[in-house]
Amino acid sequence: MTTTTAPLSDAELTQLDAYWRAANYLSVGQIYLLDNPLLREPLQPEHVKPRLLGHWGTTPGLNLLYAHLNRVIRHRDSDVVFVTGPGHGGPGLVANTYLEGTYSEVYTGIGQDAEGLRKLFRQFSFPGGIPSHVAAETPGSIHEGGELGYALVHAFGAAFDNPDLVVAAVVGDGEAETGPLAASWHSNKFLDPVRDGAVLPILHLNGYKIANPTVLARIPQQELESLFTGYGYIPITVAGDEPADVHQQLAAALDEAFDQIGAIQRASREDGEVGRPLWPMIILRTPKGWTGPAEVDGVKVEGTWRSHQVPLAETRTNPAHRAALETWLRSYRPEELFDDTGALLPELRALAPVGTRRMGANPHANGGVLLRDLDLPPMHDYAVEVSSPATESAEATRVLGTFLRDVIARNPDNFRLMGPDETASNRLSAVFETTDKVWLADISEDDEHLASSGRVMEVLSEHLCQGWLEGYLLTGRHGLFNCYEAFVHIVDSMVNQHAKWLTSSAHLDWRRPVASLNYLLTSHVWRQDHNGASHQDPGFIDHVANKRPEVVRVYLPPDANTLLAVGDHCLRSRQYVNVIVAGKQPALTYLTMDEAVAHCTRGAGIWEWASSSTPGNGLGEPDVVLACAGDVPTLETLAAADILRRRLPDLGVRVVNVVDIMRLQPESEHPHGLPDHEFDALFTTDKPIIFAYHGYPWLIHRLTYRHTNHAQLHVRGFKERGTTTTPFDMVMLNDLDRFHLVMDVIDRVPGLGSAAAGLRQEMVDARLAAKHYTREHGEDDPAITGWTWQREI
Amino acid sequence: MTTTTAPLSDAELTQLDAYWRAANYLSVGQIYLLDNPLLREPLQPEHVKPRLLGHWGTTPGLNLLYAHLNRVIRHRDSDVVFVTGPGHGGPGLVANTYLEGTYSEVYTGIGQDAEGLRKLFRQFSFPGGIPSHVAAETPGSIHEGGELGYALVHAFGAAFDNPDLVVAAVVGDGEAETGPLAASWHSNKFLDPVRDGAVLPILHLNGYKIANPTVLARIPQQELESLFTGYGYIPITVAGDEPADVHQQLAAALDEAFDQIGAIQRASREDGEVGRPLWPMIILRTPKGWTGPAEVDGVKVEGTWRSHQVPLAETRTNPAHRAALETWLRSYRPEELFDDTGALLPELRALAPVGTRRMGANPHANGGVLLRDLDLPPMHDYAVEVSSPATESAEATRVLGTFLRDVIARNPDNFRLMGPDETASNRLSAVFETTDKVWLADISEDDEHLASSGRVMEVLSEHLCQGWLEGYLLTGRHGLFNCYEAFVHIVDSMVNQHAKWLTSSAHLDWRRPVASLNYLLTSHVWRQDHNGASHQDPGFIDHVANKRPEVVRVYLPPDANTLLAVGDHCLRSRQYVNVIVAGKQPALTYLTMDEAVAHCTRGAGIWEWASSSTPGNGLGEPDVVLACAGDVPTLETLAAADILRRRLPDLGVRVVNVVDIMRLQPESEHPHGLPDHEFDALFTTDKPIIFAYHGYPWLIHRLTYRHTNHAQLHVRGFKERGTTTTPFDMVMLNDLDRFHLVMDVIDRVPGLGSAAAGLRQEMVDARLAAKHYTREHGEDDPAITGWTWQREI
Repeated sequence: MTTTTAPLSDAELTQLDAYWRAANYLSVGQIYLLDNPLLREPLQPEHVKPRLLGHWGTTPGLNLLYAHLNRVIRHRDSDVVFVTGPGHGGPGLVANTYLEGTYSEVYTGIGQDAEGLRKLFRQFSFPGGIPSHVAAETPGSIHEGGELGYALVHAFGAAFDNPDLVVAAVVGDGEAETGPLAASWHSNKFLDPVRDGAVLPILHLNGYKIANPTVLARIPQQELESLFTGYGYIPITVAGDEPADVHQQLAAALDEAFDQIGAIQRASREDGEVGRPLWPMIILRTPKGWTGPAEVDGVKVEGTWRSHQVPLAETRTNPAHRAALETWLRSYRPEELFDDTGALLPELRALAPVGTRRMGANPHANGGVLLRDLDLPPMHDYAVEVSSPATESAEATRVLGTFLRDVIARNPDNFRLMGPDETASNRLSAVFETTDKVWLADISEDDEHLASSGRVMEVLSEHLCQGWLEGYLLTGRHGLFNCYEAFVHIVDSMVNQHAKWLTSSAHLDWRRPVASLNYLLTSHVWRQDHNGASHQDPGFIDHVANKRPEVVRVYLPPDANTLLAVGDHCLRSRQYVNVIVAGKQPALTYLTMDEAVAHCTRGAGIWEWASSSTPGNGLGEPDVVLACAGDVPTLETLAAADILRRRLPDLGVRVVNVVDIMRLQPESEHPHGLPDHEFDALFTTDKPIIFAYHGYPWLIHRLTYRHTNHAQLHVRGFKERGTTTTPFDMVMLNDLDRFHLVMDVIDRVPGLGSAAAGLRQEMVDARLAAKHYTREHGEDDPAITGWTWQREI
Repeated sequence: MTTTTAPLSDAELTQLDAYWRAANYLSVGQIYLLDNPLLREPLQPEHVKPRLLGHWGTTPGLNLLYAHLNRVIRHRDSDVVFVTGPGHGGPGLVANTYLEGTYSEVYTGIGQDAEGLRKLFRQFSFPGGIPSHVAAETPGSIHEGGELGYALVHAFGAAFDNPDLVVAAVVGDGEAETGPLAASWHSNKFLDPVRDGAVLPILHLNGYKIANPTVLARIPQQELESLFTGYGYIPITVAGDEPADVHQQLAAALDEAFDQIGAIQRASREDGEVGRPLWPMIILRTPKGWTGPAEVDGVKVEGTWRSHQVPLAETRTNPAHRAALETWLRSYRPEELFDDTGALLPELRALAPVGTRRMGANPHANGGVLLRDLDLPPMHDYAVEVSSPATESAEATRVLGTFLRDVIARNPDNFRLMGPDETASNRLSAVFETTDKVWLADISEDDEHLASSGRVMEVLSEHLCQGWLEGYLLTGRHGLFNCYEAFVHIVDSMVNQHAKWLTSSAHLDWRRPVASLNYLLTSHVWRQDHNGASHQDPGFIDHVANKRPEVVRVYLPPDANTLLAVGDHCLRSRQYVNVIVAGKQPALTYLTMDEAVAHCTRGAGIWEWASSSTPGNGLGEPDVVLACAGDVPTLETLAAADILRRRLPDLGVRVVNVVDIMRLQPESEHPHGLPDHEFDALFTTDKPIIFAYHGYPWLIHRLTYRHTNHAQLHVRGFKERGTTTTPFDMVMLNDLDRFHLVMDVIDRVPGLGSAAAGLRQEMVDARLAAKHYTREHGEDDPAITGWTWQREI
């Protein structure tokens, strides 16, 4: 539908347009001007920046929307957060937060006067200044403006459990071509109109990307509306290139959208209406680079892709370009907008909301200020009993599930569990004893645990899980993303951006810390034997390890109680990306809860019970160190240690288990890094280390290469050998099995003699026999998989 | 629309249904049976596999579609490739390629008799056998069945430039929730009905994922049809749970779809109709696990998510489950399908097409057999003149663009250039002198280089670029994906799967090598100073380096001619993932074309012209090695060498440039790895190495840690310090600048004396001065950026 009413009086229209002109003026000023901010003298070359870095094309549209949303907020006292999909329109958001006063409050050096304007302009995209895109530095933002595709999913994440919030999400028509954005529209099937706020998507069709038209701008209007009807929205179209006309249309469209939102919320909250409402969305079709130069050097610019960045490129050296810039700037009539001191005129300033109703000052966009600690149950209540190490079994994630169940029960409005259709597969099903999966689409009688409200969110899109959670965290709440290990790579690029956000925001004292982004990666590489090679990839750890050490933590708890300890720790933490990798299959348990807490606190330690009672035990110097990180490598290492202790009783074997792999770095490289002498105390300075690691082996080398004993380090891990087979065959394919670890020890410890040579041959034979058994029976030899620690040896 | 005609005669219907039953029987047999394949004796525990690993739920739908497509192919002599979105339905594709005879031709050990059936069943998801999912091992497949989301985009890639091909793409309703799939529907705006084939998307709504209903199965039919109308398709719906009825509906729907495809192609090819046609797509709504057990242990299974994997889990130990399995298997009446020898009855066998019309034998699905070498122009014709190293400038990618222009001109039907709206930004614009960007959506008079046919494909989705190219390569063509370096992480997970496919297929002698997947990553980390931190990430190299060494190659050409040499090499290669990182900005040139070819062939070498004329020159032993990889690090290294040569003339400085970073690994680890003695000859065994590297520094450590001189290796690279600033400030932020490299040398070469100490302080001052200059002027000091090699010194 296209709206035709004209809700603005002439005076309102004039003022709104003036506000828009002010924002456009400040935007162009940021991109171009070093000085002479109010054009009180003729524009000289030295007033213009030597390098022009910024994006004009999307900016007038953003400014238009911001100004109109200000009006709606004032009229309705609405609580609105603005999400800028076309985040390269950074000048617009800086301009608007400056006009409303937020910017000068946050950055007190940038005052509301001519000098403040000069600094505002100069700092933009300038060395030592601010980024050219919307970023953590931009007040009111929860959304980095670099990589495109996540505006809408962030908006939904922000709206969850914020019933009074409206998140206005501007989606650029370029961004709309991305996969994550195309899927994000379906988020309306996961938004509860009772307990969640509203998202108002605004698709800004300015028609062009960097160098091309956009798909959605070039399909028939009927097809476009059909698409959004199909996505479950009621589209409201605003289209034009005459400001006065567009102002009226947009004001009417926003009134209508907010009316519809109010009606939906009243119906579901007061009248008890159930089911999925059809939410409004706005299609805004205005020219790219609107109000900028129509032509430059005889070529059309306004309304084309050529206005994407800087329409006038040579303003410092080309007088004609500089004159065109001056004409462009003066077309906004700054003298009608700012007073003698350079302050915005009071009647225009009055068009912005006040206090925390200003979108730049909305506390939801600085979630740390709203963050409450989780009420966590005592983890000891969920611990499994471990009467003796490596003799009893538990499913680690199933145990964690009972803890998460009660985390959810105790925190009914600020914790969510995300997963791409895998929460039950990952054995966290205990959570369904206390909550449901959010589902606003149709429900049939066969369905289980689906409801319009719930703490678990499942959709077969890692992008949506990640984006919802990011939006939820950045607005001050908590959560956990459970995912198959291999497929979390789907969100590699999103976690890059989130980590960058955390890194940047840590330098801004006005941004308060948010809860960590917690991953539970299970169904991991060693137990995807049934799904085969496509499901076998432990590389997310490597990806995360490239981020700044201040923001990344990686944990490989070897059993159920260590997973509990790590989980509890991560849920209490702030401002990190925490990656936890843990198995879901029945697996041996090693540590009591108290031991687990102590071990996880140290992050890495000697397991004396598994080490030889010969000189290698405890802190005595062993002949060889068997190190391990990860549940399956720990199992194989212990089984290898068992063989070595029985068969080579004079060999001093030390078992070191690593939970927190960042402990392996030098302390100069990571806050969790071990001091050299502590590393040496664990790993010796000159004895062979056989390290059985969960992932790609070279990560361990990359973390440890500065340590004294690195030359003696030999790492086994996943070397991309996988297929559909049995669990033990998987470890054998990658030489991580107990038999091969024993061979590695024999090959690297000098002077072991003929008994060792005989044992080595037995290990070769044992591998062949194990391979033969699986090929014959289709399953692993129970004599191998049934191994437990033989205390009496 | 829903079709109502009944095109099948009773006899056809009976036969088609029998064929479907045969495929279902073979599918269940693969999941469950070790022996007794034709149930010629009562089912015993030992006939059943001990571990049940496979997915039944999606399989009957896949079997239904395959059988019906066989009919269409026979009737119309159509050339059809089948893309299996729900690729975990591996049993179905194996069953169908066996029934049509392809499987036994490819795997001659699996005959068309009872013994062949026994082997077929036993090998499935069995150690030493075949994967449980559709994989490279599956004849007729170009699509790994693990990670979901890429079926449709692969299908479009396969259809490009194959005008007579129809690609039937089954999209699971789980997969349909992913971002990449949601965007893939818009691929119809990039398919030329004249020069490309057709894609027939078949959305299979069986209603459930692993543990949840699917979004698209739970929205009103009207909304669903509106969605696909909005995506630009004409949806044809088939829905039911009575086989006879569904057979008639589906036969009619496929007839109609193929009629529409034919009509579209005739209209555009013969009648000259222009513009974007509305292609048909099919919505198939049938029960999940159809024809499987209706209930198990009193719980509904057929038609629910519980049939996703194995509906009967305890068939070996639970007699009731085993009896239910036998009943289920016998419900397909195998005795009516297979003759006494175990061969499919001839009248059923006749329902499959013959020869290469069989979808399992379609040569497009084994693209290597169709692959033709590219006709490449002589690269020397595009070389820039280099009269003296490091004194002239060129934009490397712009030069490559001229080469690519002529590659395109010479190979008009089997080479495509993909890019997410960045081909011009990446300065490859020369290609537009010979071709256009494909665009079937509306075109306006302001547009440039858009046409219904063209060799360049631009859409703002890295997922679509990657997926189209994968589909294009796997069907035997060539291409290059140009992308901003930071955002190629968006496809991390896709390149994982492609690399796994290449690794697996290399072990299959019947699969012929395909062209390499070539990335040109430009707009790289060091020159995203203007876009800021979000655009700064060199980690894709690390990600790729985790893949099997047989399939990955990474090149960092330092200048224009080396980029040409590397580009030419990559376009000739097969079966690799080639990553090329190169700058687009004006940058110094170092090597003539002949020198570039020689240097790139070696992959790493001493640049004698840049090394000291003191003892360090040539193969004499230097005091320090300045190594570099990447264009910006090479520039900074040379500038540092220049300073050192001028100021510390007695210091033996050797400059080593690395183009092929896999050369740094030992030869035991990578086919390109240098033998130890060659590595030592370049890097010495005991002198300090200051290595300036393009990406995260630890990658160089991970590649070199086994080499003798690793302890003396000191790497500078990107340590995640970035923002919007100037290019030189970017390198300074990460201590990669020339001044810091000189400091590193002074800090690590012993006994340099007081002149060096003085120089070190000058370097500290120079960094401060450079920082001050950029903050003052907003651009780098031209005295720094204007540096060229001073031959006379």
